[in-house]
Amino acid sequence: MADLLGLLAYASLTAFFRLADDASLAVALSDKTALAEMAVAEFAHFQLLRARLEEMPANPTLAMQPFVGPVDEFHARTAPSDWLEGLVKAYVGDGIAADFYRAVAQVLEPKTRDLVLTVLADTGHSEFVIARVRAAIEADPRVAGRLALWARRLVGEALGQAQRVAAERESLAALVAGGDPSQLGNIGRMFAQLTDAHAARMAALGLAS
Amino acid sequence: MADLLGLLAYASLTAFFRLADDASLAVALSDKTALAEMAVAEFAHFQLLRARLEEMPANPTLAMQPFVGPVDEFHARTAPSDWLEGLVKAYVGDGIAADFYRAVAQVLEPKTRDLVLTVLADTGHSEFVIARVRAAIEADPRVAGRLALWARRLVGEALGQAQRVAAERESLAALVAGGDPSQLGNIGRMFAQLTDAHAARMAALGLAS
Repeated sequence: MADLLGLLAYASLTAFFRLADDASLAVALSDKTALAEMAVAEFAHFQLLRARLEEMPANPTLAMQPFVGPVDEFHARTAPSDWLEGLVKAYVGDGIAADFYRAVAQVLEPKTRDLVLTVLADTGHSEFVIARVRAAIEADPRVAGRLALWARRLVGEALGQAQRVAAERESLAALVAGGDPSQLGNIGRMFAQLTDAHAARMAALGLAS
Repeated sequence: MADLLGLLAYASLTAFFRLADDASLAVALSDKTALAEMAVAEFAHFQLLRARLEEMPANPTLAMQPFVGPVDEFHARTAPSDWLEGLVKAYVGDGIAADFYRAVAQVLEPKTRDLVLTVLADTGHSEFVIARVRAAIEADPRVAGRLALWARRLVGEALGQAQRVAAERESLAALVAGGDPSQLGNIGRMFAQLTDAHAARMAALGLAS
């Protein structure tokens, strides 16, 4: 369980840094501020997760360490080249990650599950992203094709790193399978759900998935 | 007064971005996290100041706009080249800025003055910076000379931008002088206080000022 919390904690901390960084791509002060608010929300998640690890007790730094490589690698391979790519990454990338964590949380003991679900609750910034991306597509319809391609790349890289984590950390893979081989069918169903939710997010942005 | 709040708001927002950026220079996860916490505290200040501007009512974006140039210029000229320079900038630079704002706040009406003083209260991260810089000097005494030079450059750049702001925004200069030419002696006393406080911070870091 420290594994899952460590992964979530490091992913939140990294999301904070990436969002703060992406905000610098924004021209308008109000856009910069909106992305900074998303970054700060991620940091609050990190603080909650770190507190839970300390309470277990587990060393947060040690719990995060195994996931530094895969998470950093994901972000290095998906550095947005402009403001719109940053927005799509924030919305689509974080959405997939949240769905995955939410599915895994179902097998956790109640206290940790509730914490994970709190951390993953939509921080209310989706509408800002959807409005901005839709406005950009309206202004220049060619943007839609480029961003749809970008979103597919994000998904591919995310799955690649997820497989790497699952292969290296048996504990996490077992957690997802509920420690029971007959539960492996659940993983298939989980991925089907993730795919459906992703398609819904793409449609909200006005992009083909 | 919207001028002072606008300057403080933009300075806080920018400090958030710079600290988040500088945190990426840290190697240890615990150091990264500590600097990220300083960044998040700056963003909380920004949110308070923005709320006060909206309450006046004043448009926060318009209030910040005149100070985008000088503040951005200051940061562009003082980009830390390593983790230690980032720490010294966070501590010494923010300390001088805080002293200046605190002095100016004395001429504001009580409600805004209290807000400014709240925003400027030490967020409790000074001890972290002092401990890290002192440890680095202990490990390699040559570091002290380089960082002392760096701190002097920070002060010079800060004063240069402050003069630019005062020259361009008569309202701020008048605010500092209390609108009364006989008060100009106060400015001299204020700068003497700033210099004393700066020397005390340098001494705390173990640096010559």
